Amino acid sequence: METITWSSEERQIAQTAFKKAYRREVQSLIEYVQTQAGSITEVNDLWQLHDLLSARRHQLDGKYDSRDASLVFVFAELVKQKLLAVEELEGINPDKLTKIVALSRM
Amino acid sequence: METITWSSEERQIAQTAFKKAYRREVQSLIEYVQTQAGSITEVNDLWQLHDLLSARRHQLDGKYDSRDASLVFVFAELVKQKLLAVEELEGINPDKLTKIVALSRM
Repeated sequence: METITWSSEERQIAQTAFKKAYRREVQSLIEYVQTQAGSITEVNDLWQLHDLLSARRHQLDGKYDSRDASLVFVFAELVKQKLLAVEELEGINPDKLTKIVALSRM
Repeated sequence: METITWSSEERQIAQTAFKKAYRREVQSLIEYVQTQAGSITEVNDLWQLHDLLSARRHQLDGKYDSRDASLVFVFAELVKQKLLAVEELEGINPDKLTKIVALSRM
């Protein structure tokens, strides 16, 4: 696969977009955890919350991969999950944006 | 170390006491988790809650060990942690109770 290079301006836009998406994802997870915690009544509910946190922590650790070769795929996933709007990637080269949009629809 | 044997009546009392202590410990953990969850504001708080659940799950899995050779030690720990009152072990042989109380003060 070809290597996609990112200019320093694009990296700056990417970093800002990453932070936005991450904050949104974390905020949504916090709200979900608080709702789940509020409805705990027995020990299995506790361990379900634990399993959820284990899975989401693992997933979040791997997801926000900012290496050049990963960025298009990560942004496609974030757009797909509605954690980012394509408009928030404005300033990134149109070829990359086209790839991101196409991948986000898969 | 000598093997301590438990009669079937004692085992019955032990099982009931185990369940009581377990319920109390779980209930206290649920309340703690709900309080912690309520004060989550950022991602590190989420992972702190996750770490807490990991530790407590591991600890609870190992703690309620109902093998004859473990019971005295487990009850001593439960009494020490105020999850059980000695009176709730009434019916268990006085020698065992003396050991439990002595160990609970260590």
